[in-house]
Amino acid sequence: MNFPKETKAAILVEQKAPLEIRNIQLPQQLEYGHVLVKVHYSGICGSQLGEIDGVKGHDPFLPHLLGHEGSGEVMATGAGVNTVSPGDKVVMHWRKGAGIESQVPKYMWEDKPVNAGFVTTFNEHAVVSENRVTKIPESFPMDIAPLFGCAVTTGLGVINNNAKLKIGESIVVFGAGGVGLNVIQGASMVSGYPIIAVDIFDSRLALAKKFGATHLINSQNKDPEKAIRKLTGKKGADVVVDNTGNTDVINLAYQLTSPDGKTILVGVPRKGDHISIYSLPLHFGKQIIGSHGGETDPAKDIPNYIKLYENNKLKLNDLITDTFELKDINSAIDGIRNGTISGRCLIKMDNNGT
Amino acid sequence: MNFPKETKAAILVEQKAPLEIRNIQLPQQLEYGHVLVKVHYSGICGSQLGEIDGVKGHDPFLPHLLGHEGSGEVMATGAGVNTVSPGDKVVMHWRKGAGIESQVPKYMWEDKPVNAGFVTTFNEHAVVSENRVTKIPESFPMDIAPLFGCAVTTGLGVINNNAKLKIGESIVVFGAGGVGLNVIQGASMVSGYPIIAVDIFDSRLALAKKFGATHLINSQNKDPEKAIRKLTGKKGADVVVDNTGNTDVINLAYQLTSPDGKTILVGVPRKGDHISIYSLPLHFGKQIIGSHGGETDPAKDIPNYIKLYENNKLKLNDLITDTFELKDINSAIDGIRNGTISGRCLIKMDNNGT
Repeated sequence: MNFPKETKAAILVEQKAPLEIRNIQLPQQLEYGHVLVKVHYSGICGSQLGEIDGVKGHDPFLPHLLGHEGSGEVMATGAGVNTVSPGDKVVMHWRKGAGIESQVPKYMWEDKPVNAGFVTTFNEHAVVSENRVTKIPESFPMDIAPLFGCAVTTGLGVINNNAKLKIGESIVVFGAGGVGLNVIQGASMVSGYPIIAVDIFDSRLALAKKFGATHLINSQNKDPEKAIRKLTGKKGADVVVDNTGNTDVINLAYQLTSPDGKTILVGVPRKGDHISIYSLPLHFGKQIIGSHGGETDPAKDIPNYIKLYENNKLKLNDLITDTFELKDINSAIDGIRNGTISGRCLIKMDNNGT
Repeated sequence: MNFPKETKAAILVEQKAPLEIRNIQLPQQLEYGHVLVKVHYSGICGSQLGEIDGVKGHDPFLPHLLGHEGSGEVMATGAGVNTVSPGDKVVMHWRKGAGIESQVPKYMWEDKPVNAGFVTTFNEHAVVSENRVTKIPESFPMDIAPLFGCAVTTGLGVINNNAKLKIGESIVVFGAGGVGLNVIQGASMVSGYPIIAVDIFDSRLALAKKFGATHLINSQNKDPEKAIRKLTGKKGADVVVDNTGNTDVINLAYQLTSPDGKTILVGVPRKGDHISIYSLPLHFGKQIIGSHGGETDPAKDIPNYIKLYENNKLKLNDLITDTFELKDINSAIDGIRNGTISGRCLIKMDNNGT
């Protein structure tokens, strides 16, 4: 194999500024547990928008690479790696799967280090930790595979592991982006009813309907609290999921949760923003739960979801509404922010399939 | 109200013999927590066949009434009853719901007592315990309602509460009768895959397919173990449900359960029959669980399932394949036993709607 010396990457140099598209130097030797992946496609998740916008506050790791859901082909493996081999097609994911957790890779950019976590996907080649890749069938579509890195696995994981939604239970989903749409899809797959989607963009609500929402509320046009109580009755919903991280929305989500129901937090709040809730109901059965990627187990869940997709039991094609080249990633990010991109947006790498 | 003096009932007088259809005397006064119901329809469950056949051994309660899923209208209520009122339409169920658990009723037959439990449904009028009835909407079809007394609630409860089946997990269901078909329906409603139905009657397997089974195995024609391992791989299935009570089937079900999977027992074994299993895997994640009516909570679950049915999200019409009059109940029982009745069989009472 020709070990590539450098690769193109979108780098976060400064918060609240566009990413810089530059060539960076790859480490020339793989360490214990490292896997070199030629990235084919990356997804863009709300988390990256949060990193760029600095919602968690000061970022001590600048400059650094980004992206946590992708697909690609294994080019080489470091010592100890045994779950994947060169030539394997893989999903790249941020939750820990099988195999070694390696050191983070050491990329260089203009003779200075550029930081990266255990997995990054906004770069054409990536050195990642073995436990952040999961092998998929050779024939699996590479543009669908990134969805198993976060959007689908988190969304379905919220239903499987956090909500544990039962047949006939009611659910409200605030925020119908990539993860929210899959929370909705999951709720529909386990026969929740009603499944109420709330968003500020009609385009996303239209997608939410495709993914199984039974009722749609645009909270720009009507009071979501009134509209939801009309559907669930006074007691509220069995499960309310927040994907927005907006503390006003979280407070409302908690209020709209039934006395023995669950409020599930998926979106991450802005640094310093506090939720404000009446805690008494927590003593009598109400729960508020923070989700960590839907507690997904990639090694178990990704093969299961692939099996469902291959048997036409998982809607994914409609999820991808836009595809950009890496050089245009800042336009993609703008489109997600202003709602012109309604579903999941993919970045297609130049070296895709070459 | 004209309090009826007597009512027609199918009585179990002797084990392994046909039921006797006779008039019995109703108690002329309702006690604390009693509800008098004019029964419209009763289902017939495998449990009643077991009672007739004496699978649990000697029956100390002979002669006694039978039946544990039905629909009807409340005619009168005893002291303390507040969840239902005269005129209400109800499901009659054997799992405890809301309200009082009363004493069992005292029926007489030819001047001798005839025993009955907290609920019986093979009689045109029944005095039942408040916590064995749940109010349903006035307009709900009375021939569908009995299914919420056992078949549907147990089947979906096995999925909701015993199996806790997750999206994409595999399941095998041995025995596709009224409960088994609803285990299959529930598995399909929560997006299990594959959903493998095993039965000895092709007619039931055809119904199983309608209810969501993805693979069908007639164990008279092929070795179920081989056929199932071919579908699940060597490790077996995440969940295996036995509805037969046959200990050979239970032993096989346990063997076919994956190392971290669940064997769920719904069918009741014949008295004295022992299962024979290797217990070591139980230390490493395998579970064997006895289901008690799917741990259904009628007060919560019946309204949820009604909501799903009313929104076309629950298949029930296809479940009822046969309807008999009370006088012909022994023919119905024979038909279930020999497989000519493939789905749930209803008994329609003479006083239905009068």
